[in-house]
Amino acid sequence: MSKVTSDLSISADGYSAGPNQTEQRPFGDDGGDGWGSKLHACMFETPEEDRAGGDANVQAAAAQTAVAAPGAFVMGRNMFGPVRGEWDREWKGWWGDDPPFHVPVFVLTHHPRDPQPMDGGTTYFFVTDGIESALKQAREAAGNRDVSIQGGASTINQYLAAGLIDELRLHVVPVTLGAGTRLFEGVPPLNLQQLESPPPKSSVTHLTYRVLH
Amino acid sequence: MSKVTSDLSISADGYSAGPNQTEQRPFGDDGGDGWGSKLHACMFETPEEDRAGGDANVQAAAAQTAVAAPGAFVMGRNMFGPVRGEWDREWKGWWGDDPPFHVPVFVLTHHPRDPQPMDGGTTYFFVTDGIESALKQAREAAGNRDVSIQGGASTINQYLAAGLIDELRLHVVPVTLGAGTRLFEGVPPLNLQQLESPPPKSSVTHLTYRVLH
Repeated sequence: MSKVTSDLSISADGYSAGPNQTEQRPFGDDGGDGWGSKLHACMFETPEEDRAGGDANVQAAAAQTAVAAPGAFVMGRNMFGPVRGEWDREWKGWWGDDPPFHVPVFVLTHHPRDPQPMDGGTTYFFVTDGIESALKQAREAAGNRDVSIQGGASTINQYLAAGLIDELRLHVVPVTLGAGTRLFEGVPPLNLQQLESPPPKSSVTHLTYRVLH
Repeated sequence: MSKVTSDLSISADGYSAGPNQTEQRPFGDDGGDGWGSKLHACMFETPEEDRAGGDANVQAAAAQTAVAAPGAFVMGRNMFGPVRGEWDREWKGWWGDDPPFHVPVFVLTHHPRDPQPMDGGTTYFFVTDGIESALKQAREAAGNRDVSIQGGASTINQYLAAGLIDELRLHVVPVTLGAGTRLFEGVPPLNLQQLESPPPKSSVTHLTYRVLH
């Protein structure tokens, strides 16, 4: 049966990004202490097959955990890009002309926009009527494959709070950030069931949880 | 060379205990949602060799991770017991007449008290002049063995912030609590080096970090 999954790289203190994301720094402020970029840098020190989340190498994580690639993605607008408010400038995501998704991606936004087809099978659809609608559309697009809630953490938190995520795969990077966007913030207490994960091949620990409803 | 280590069981969102510890609920409020006791219960569903922290089965964790048992412990007063202010009632810790430490335990407090010898080699010493003094005394007592900062999280945070912990061993329990005493709270960003940990034998994931200074 298809699932709703989420892959996220977090620091040991649970942050997925530093504060103050900009176009130049999609993972947020360096703050003199190396906030977001520290998380980012650490992810890219790891072997290809150990990377996941953040920079959209969910496929790599999927390959590693021997699950099928998702049939659709949902992401928050801040993960899609730094543009806020109206779509008053051209922006087609952080991932270039041929993004690594290769399936429909549903972007949560308050501002309507026409679908944006890209090379390689990715199309960005813009959803203005909330997280449940985005998930419904993603499920329909995914058919019998999984839907991945791609992030960021605040989007994942909304889906967790709504009880809509079945499996959460965390990739814990050995740094602490102390500030930023935090997984589980504002989410009511959860019961999780730890599923088997491969032993770490690098400095990143993989935790795979089934979210018990 | 002997190290300063710390073993702590935490929820997936980084809490080591719920709020409002009492004598009846050493892990804090159940809050209707199973705060602290949920963490506690989950720890005790796990095999003996997978338990650690919290209820002082550090020895079990030590055995599992094939490190020597500590030669001395340091703990915060709230971990030692529910008595606040002056020592105006008899309290000899949560662990009965023969506590599982079997070595000197240095308890941080603002209120002087004579050493409290117990059965089995444990003696509680009460330290009123701060964390560095407690660590110094513990190092002397431990000789060439490690010193374990036993908890709770607020004590560990003080030692982390002061750069005094060499190795942090986290035992991540598959629940989230959403409130309570949180590891890393108020601690400046840390660089960690992930050390090899045994694969999880149960629902608890073990993370072993060297704290890079």
